[in-house]
Order: sequence, then structure tokens, then C-alpha cells
Amino acid sequence: MEIIKGFPSTSQDDYQLNMINIIKHGARNFGKQQIVTRKAGSMFRYTYKDAYARIKRLANALYGLGVKIGDRVGVLEWNTYRYYEMDFGIPGSGAVLLQMNLRLSPPELSFVVNHAGASFIFVDETLIPIAEAIAPLCKTVKGWVILTDKKLGDVKTKLSPVFSYEEILAAAKEDIEWPNLDEKSAYACCYTTGTTGNPKGVYYSHRDVYLHSATIALNAELSYRDCFFQIVPMFHAMGWGTPQAATMAGSKLLLPGRYTADDLGPLVEVMVSEKVTVGDGAPAIFMPMLEYIRKMDVKPSFKGARLISGATEPPVALMKGLYDMTGAEIIHAYGATETTPLVTINRLKPWLDEIYSEEQKWDIKRKQGYAVVGLDVKIADPDGKELPWDGKSSGEILIRGPWITASYYDAPGTETQFTADGYWKSGDAGTIDEEGYIKITDRVKDLIKSGGEWISSVDMENELVSHPAVLEAAVTGVSHPKWEERPIALVVIRAEQKGKVSKEDILAHLSSKKFAKWQLPEAVLFVDAILRTSVGKIDKKVIREQYKDIYMGSK
Amino acid sequence: MEIIKGFPSTSQDDYQLNMINIIKHGARNFGKQQIVTRKAGSMFRYTYKDAYARIKRLANALYGLGVKIGDRVGVLEWNTYRYYEMDFGIPGSGAVLLQMNLRLSPPELSFVVNHAGASFIFVDETLIPIAEAIAPLCKTVKGWVILTDKKLGDVKTKLSPVFSYEEILAAAKEDIEWPNLDEKSAYACCYTTGTTGNPKGVYYSHRDVYLHSATIALNAELSYRDCFFQIVPMFHAMGWGTPQAATMAGSKLLLPGRYTADDLGPLVEVMVSEKVTVGDGAPAIFMPMLEYIRKMDVKPSFKGARLISGATEPPVALMKGLYDMTGAEIIHAYGATETTPLVTINRLKPWLDEIYSEEQKWDIKRKQGYAVVGLDVKIADPDGKELPWDGKSSGEILIRGPWITASYYDAPGTETQFTADGYWKSGDAGTIDEEGYIKITDRVKDLIKSGGEWISSVDMENELVSHPAVLEAAVTGVSHPKWEERPIALVVIRAEQKGKVSKEDILAHLSSKKFAKWQLPEAVLFVDAILRTSVGKIDKKVIREQYKDIYMGSK
Repeated sequence: MEIIKGFPSTSQDDYQLNMINIIKHGARNFGKQQIVTRKAGSMFRYTYKDAYARIKRLANALYGLGVKIGDRVGVLEWNTYRYYEMDFGIPGSGAVLLQMNLRLSPPELSFVVNHAGASFIFVDETLIPIAEAIAPLCKTVKGWVILTDKKLGDVKTKLSPVFSYEEILAAAKEDIEWPNLDEKSAYACCYTTGTTGNPKGVYYSHRDVYLHSATIALNAELSYRDCFFQIVPMFHAMGWGTPQAATMAGSKLLLPGRYTADDLGPLVEVMVSEKVTVGDGAPAIFMPMLEYIRKMDVKPSFKGARLISGATEPPVALMKGLYDMTGAEIIHAYGATETTPLVTINRLKPWLDEIYSEEQKWDIKRKQGYAVVGLDVKIADPDGKELPWDGKSSGEILIRGPWITASYYDAPGTETQFTADGYWKSGDAGTIDEEGYIKITDRVKDLIKSGGEWISSVDMENELVSHPAVLEAAVTGVSHPKWEERPIALVVIRAEQKGKVSKEDILAHLSSKKFAKWQLPEAVLFVDAILRTSVGKIDKKVIREQYKDIYMGSK
Repeated sequence: MEIIKGFPSTSQDDYQLNMINIIKHGARNFGKQQIVTRKAGSMFRYTYKDAYARIKRLANALYGLGVKIGDRVGVLEWNTYRYYEMDFGIPGSGAVLLQMNLRLSPPELSFVVNHAGASFIFVDETLIPIAEAIAPLCKTVKGWVILTDKKLGDVKTKLSPVFSYEEILAAAKEDIEWPNLDEKSAYACCYTTGTTGNPKGVYYSHRDVYLHSATIALNAELSYRDCFFQIVPMFHAMGWGTPQAATMAGSKLLLPGRYTADDLGPLVEVMVSEKVTVGDGAPAIFMPMLEYIRKMDVKPSFKGARLISGATEPPVALMKGLYDMTGAEIIHAYGATETTPLVTINRLKPWLDEIYSEEQKWDIKRKQGYAVVGLDVKIADPDGKELPWDGKSSGEILIRGPWITASYYDAPGTETQFTADGYWKSGDAGTIDEEGYIKITDRVKDLIKSGGEWISSVDMENELVSHPAVLEAAVTGVSHPKWEERPIALVVIRAEQKGKVSKEDILAHLSSKKFAKWQLPEAVLFVDAILRTSVGKIDKKVIREQYKDIYMGSK
């Protein structure tokens, strides 16, 4: 889009939005505010001022290692104060923090390191096995910095050359003149792993993260009176940018250290002892936390606490259970690696609060929420035509704004993920209602494009399995000479019902629900089993291939 | 300062921060939120959605009048929904909103209009006399748009040509494609009137106001649950940018319309009826409001409300009185036309809240507060050397950041108001303590520079009049061959004490208080009266001139 120049301003428009200013502000005005990290058997406690002193040393230490402005530096670490220091020290020095997802396989993780061309990798002692597994595959890495309280000599590793984080910090001077970085320089990068192809790199600018932090702080209503609990892994889209946002607001920060989803009791305990008022996580974490709380004799009070929940739609049972038992509110938000990630947040507008029943209120909280200020969001049909905000028209969610990626780094062929007018195509399909609340119903690739309209395969599968005789079902689109695509349904009938259910019964069931006649599949195939991938998902790729000719010759 | 490029990002860094997106967001997500304006005898009530529809019409109407991108358009209006519409519609169209201070004299106001080169002026019907007074002096104005509910034919004016705001809006179409403005384009301009020279123009960019709005929203903790009362005139530094910030947060907005400082009862009444939770103003307004409340039989409850107070230090009696009587908290903030204006805000940090006595808490609330996130603030001595944050060292407050002006528009000679490294010299002198709280003590021009150190003339005057025999006093610096400047004190002794007080008594009084020996004036002159200006201020300019040779020949 052409940018039109108006009358010149007299403002300091060349003052760069640089993330180092956020922690400088924290150290200056909230110097005594605490950053608390859960460690094995103890709590590590220091202040913003302490953190900033170490951040300055870290930047000087990076220069000492030979790291230059623009270099990429990888980090393999849990949610700790050291990650926090690297979140500011690495980008502050002018380098780019490469977030390494410790759940990736060695081939994927080494692909990420090589693609980013990381020169150094900072790795927690407990994650050395992961680093050792990828080390032989990493072509650009000049050294490994171990995050540990031990002396370097006491750490066993085949990595080489190795340095100690604590030792290089201790040896570095604290005094620093920060580089005046162009705000469009990369601050950090995160690789997104789709189901196909190589991981794709999103390189967030300082400007991006700065504006995003302010938006998080505004929408999560963060203040210096809050204690923010960073449950979301800091290696994933910068922990949703909440450590940065909390710093902007001067909040106390609580970092859980290493934790596993099957032992979340300790997280509940620190929430109580540190007086958490706001945090972020996902239903996969909040659900077991709720189960833990359910078994506690004395229920903790988190009255007024806001827990921002992403990843997937939070079940009402979770939201209501947590609220009834502790007073904490789950607030659903939506985004992706490509969106820094905040796109929508779900807050109940006062005029809806007035007219909605309790049930309606819980129900609306399952929606993804409305787009935060600063972004353009719309839904479009398969031809790219914008669809109305009526809560019914379903289309692909398209997003544009200062913290949305404009491309994937060095990834030819991915240009199709963006529209000509600069929107990122999320791949999510959904509706937007009159109030702006977005409801995501599907991944676009799970939608069937029929005559310029969409049919949701996930919806149809859900309806099929709601038929009492149906055990399993899979719906996918296959090529059609006239309609581009048409659905086919594979149905597994329960053993005791076999032979008693006809195609017409199945179609009648679908049309008695929400499916129109034109949406019904011409082909309903009774099969013995549904093909699934190794992780248990329906293998639609193979099913599509298998039945690709079924509508050939149809009109 | 040189800007250093790091590694390229993939973010949408070319997405422009454009203020029109703020009201688009308001209309989209908070479409049913109310904007309420107090009118003579009634309340005018509509929604963000309604406002945005009219804002679109306004932009089209401007194009219809021949207004082009980059044109300056003047506004002479009270705090009303129409001002709100112009706040977005004029800059959204690509033009610049010229804020016209209706308290300026016709020569000053016409200077402003001519300097800005405004092509149209929008004027409220009640302010036509001001417009008529300046019209013959305005060289660039092509037309006057009257803000009125009446038919144009029923409005009596000599202005020509005239248009009706309502009529041009009604005739314009609503559909618009907003220009994709460079964020560095001017959004609005405001002229600052010093005691000497012509008014100086500050032209705020869209980027400036956008970032400032987010910062206000964060620091005033605005949310969609708030009702914001815009008491500060919208013609003064954009009403402190709070209408824009409230829109960003989706708050309800209450606009007081026309009001006068001698009849503030109606403002208290609407605060109650509209359930105000946050607002902004100055002690000059809050004091009479408190007096009104004092006389009310039933005190209103503003429990939890935050009233942001600027302009001057709020007296403890005001803060405490209002809090005790209504529960509202006065929050002091500091800034200037050149700073958009937010520089500091005074919130009590939790760790001070824990240790301070009630008295200390009230006392600290009189300070200007700490610098908000995003700005660089420091104090410097007369040679520009940065001074420590010890709560004692006093220097000029220097400010730098995205919403600070980098220059005055077309004002040769004003370059001296800026440092080489890009700070704006505020002209205010003060201290910063270890916690970052700024305390302003003086205007720099009222300080005396003696041997590289500062002596506060205001402090010394206050000490002099605390002597029981002293009726009036004036202190100023005059040239000194060795020390650059030295203070002289003019003292008026009470009639009954005349002849009974010596220079030595006066100096002893000063040194028994907080003044060091080197700060004491060599010349203490007993005079019959202190020369004052027409508005009652000590006329230091003339006094300095009168005694300029007093230290000639001294060593």
C-alpha cells in the first residue's frame, strides 16, 4: 500500500522503539519490584534493578564472545530469571534471540539453528542432552554457554567450546552504552512448525514487540500492583510477550522454572504463596491445576485474578470450575507465532453483561474474543471477498498490523500465505459477530470449498459421531469437476448396528441438524476403520489421495 | 544520534500508526459505548459507532470544501462530541487539526492562525465573537464552518464565507477509503505561549499521539469499564490526549461542554449521574469542585475514582479533602505542550506504601511523579552535565522520547531549547529521587547560576517572607565578573519594623534555614515596594536591568 505523506510534524519521530528501554524503565522506576523464579527446592528472588545490572553485563559478555550486531543467538532454557535476562540482553546488544523449542526433534531443531545461522547457543544444564543431540548437525555454532549454578568444570558435557553464563557475566563490566538500534531490526525469532514442510522463521522487530507489549499491558490491564505468573513457555512466541508487557507495567514477575503437566501442584502452591493476580497458560495446564485444587482441603483464593488462556478454546467446565472454587477468571485470547501473538481477547462488554443470562455469559467466554486495538482483522471467502460480521458467515481469518509477520524468513513458496493488501492468512476459519467476537470453527485446510462456499469437515464429523450408530467418522473434500470440491464421508458403524444403517439415514441425520441440502456429501462410505496418523489425527492427506477420483465424471 | 541497523525482521514494520485506527477500533469493538456531552439543559448521548459514522462524513465534507492532505484546519470549540469528531475526522482525512486556545488575545490567536496557514476554521456559535475579532487579521482562511444546532440562516455573523457543520455532514457521503498516512505526518498542532516572543507551534505526528495514547491508557489504567470525564480543555495539548486514550481503551466518555471555573456545581452533578470513574483536570478546577461538594448535604461517592491533575502541584488539602469526602484519588501528572503532554505520573509504589506513614504518603503525592515508560528523563546542571538521582541535586529537567517535540515549527532561534543529543529543555528545575520521583522547584530562568551551581530564587524569596519583619521580597541573579551570577535580595520591611532590621539579621535568618554561606546574597537592599507586572508577578526582568551593575568590580 502506498504511504502518503502529510504535513511534517515536529515530533521526535526518529526516536526508535527499542526494547532495552522497557527494562531500563523497570530498573529505574520499579527497581525494587521482584522477579521470583521457582528453583528445585527454593525460590530465587531478585529485583528489576538486579536483573538490569546483569543484563548490561550479559551484553558486554556477548561482545566479549565476539557476538556482533545482527548475529543470532539461540536459547534453550526453561522459564527462569536467566531467560528473562537474555530476553533483554541479547536483543539489547543488537543480536537476535533465537527461541529454541525444546520439544522439537533433533532434525527439526538443528534445521532451525542452521536456518537462523546461530553463532552461539545458551543452554540450561538440564537440557544439555538436547544440545548434544543437535550439536553435530549445527553448522554455524561457534560455542555453547551453559546456564548453571555449578562451576563449569563440574558440568559434564561433550559440547565444545563451552562457557559458563555466570562466569562470563562475572567477568564482564556493567557499564554499557546501548546501540541505538533501528526499531525495524529483529529482536527475536521463533520458528513455527506446521504439519508439512520445514519450520518457518518469524523474526519479530523491536517495534513489533514494543507495540505488542503495550497492547498486552492495556488489554490484560497490567499494573505495578500485579504479580504476573509466566506459565507459558518463554521459548514459545516469547512467552506470548507477557514478560515484556509485565515489565512495561512494572508488575512483579513470577517464573515457574521447570515444570511438567503431570505435576502442577507446585505451581498452584507458588500462586498462593506469591499472591498471583494475573498469569497466562493454556487449558492443558489449567485443567490439571484445577484438578489439583479440587483435591485441596482448603481452597486457595485467587479472587479477581485473571488467567489468560490461549492455544485452544477453554471448556466452560474449566472456567466455571476455577471461578467457583477460587474466584479466578479465565480470559480466552487468540493468536499465533506469526502474530507475536495477541490478536483477540475475550472480555465481556458492559452492555452484554447487563442483558446476558449466566449461561450466555459462560458461552460467550468460549469465543476467541474481539481484535485488540491496532490490528485489522477480517474474514474472507475462498475468493478473498470480505464477509459480513453477522456471526454466521464463515471465512478465513485474515490479520494485518504492526505485530503481524509480513513474510517468513528465507522461505520461498510461502508468499501465498499473504494477501496482496498485506494480510496474513491465518489458516483458521471462523465467524465474527456484530460485536466483533470471533469464533474459530476450523482450520481452513479442513474446510471443503464447494462452489465458492465452505463446508466445515470438523462440524460434519461432529454431527456424524452424534448419530447413535456411528463409532467414528471422517469427512474430507475431494475434487469435483463442477463444484471444485465436494465432501465425502467415511463412516464406521458400531458393531452391533452394522447393516442396519443406510446412507439415507446418515444424510437425514445431517440435514435434521444444521446442514443444508447442498452441503450433504454425495458419497457416504461405510468403512471398517478410519486411517489415522502416528499422533492419532485423521490422516486426511491419505484419505483425499485414496478417493481423489470419486467424483470424476460427475456434473 | 546514529541509528544502527540490526538483522532484518519479518514484521509488518511499514504498517503505519495512524490515529484513525483508534476510532475504527472503538466503533468496531465498543460500538455501543457511549459518548455523552453536557449541553445547555440536556445531555447529548450517542455511541462510538454513531461518532465514527459522522467522522467519516466529516472527512468527506472536508474534501468537499477543498481541504487537501497536509492542510491545516483550525478549531474553536468547547469540550463537545463535535470536537471529538474533529479530533479524528480532520487528521483522518490527512489534514492537521490546529487547536485554537480561546483564551488568547486576538493578536496572538491570529498570529497562530497565520503561522499555521489554516485554510478553514471550525467555530462554535458561542465563540463567533472571537472568530470575528481575528477574521480581518487571518490571511489564509478560506471559510468558516459554524458548529451549531441552528439552521445556518438563523446564525448571525459577519464571517464569510460560512458553512454549517451539520449541513456539510448531512450532505457528505459516509463511505470513505482513509488515506494510508505516513505515521510521521502531523496529526494536530498546538501553540505554546511563553512570556516572551510569539506563540510557538508544536506539530504532533500520528505516531506521537498513537504512542502517547497507549501510554496514557496504561498509566491511568483505563478500561472499557471506565467512564472518563474530559474536564481538561480539548484545545489544550489535545485535552492531554485523554479522549484518544479513552477511545483506545473503549471507555465511556463524558464531555462537559462549556463550563466556567466559577460555576462547577453542574460538573459535580454529572460526575454523579454518569458514574465517572476517571477524569482529568487541574487544581484550579478541582478546588472549587471540592468547595461545592463541601456544601452538599449528601456527599457523592466517587470511591475508587482517579482524577489526574496537572498544571500545578496539587495541595494536600485538596487531595485529602476530596478523598475523605468522596473517596476519589487525585493523581498528579506532569507535562507540557511540547510533551503531548504526559511525562510523569505519581503513583505510590507498593514497597513505599508498606513503609510510609500516612503523612509521608500525602507528601509524596505532591511530587510530579516518575517518568512514564518510553521516555528518557534526566536533570542537568547549567553546563549540561547529568546530575544524580539523589533527591537533592537540582537541575533542569531534560526530556526525550517519541512524543516529545524535536523542534518548534518555523521558529528560528528556538534551536537552543534542545540539546545536541536530542533532549527538549523543559525550563523547569527540579530534583529526582532514588525512586525516580521528580520534584519541580523552579523555572530555570528563576534560578541563579553561581560558579556552576544553582541557587533557587523562589526558595530564597519564600525564606525571606517567613521572617516576621519581612512583608515582601524579591530575589534575582545579576552578573558577576567571577561567579557568572550572584543573587541580590530586595526586601520590604513591615512599617512597624522599619529601621529595626539589619542586613545581618536577614542573612542570619537565611543561613539558619537551608541556605549555605556561598548562597547568601552579597547585596540585601531595603526597598519600599517590589516592582510587579500587570498580572501581579514580580517583574524580575526590570529588576535585573535596574541592578545589573551592582557587582561590577567585585572579585
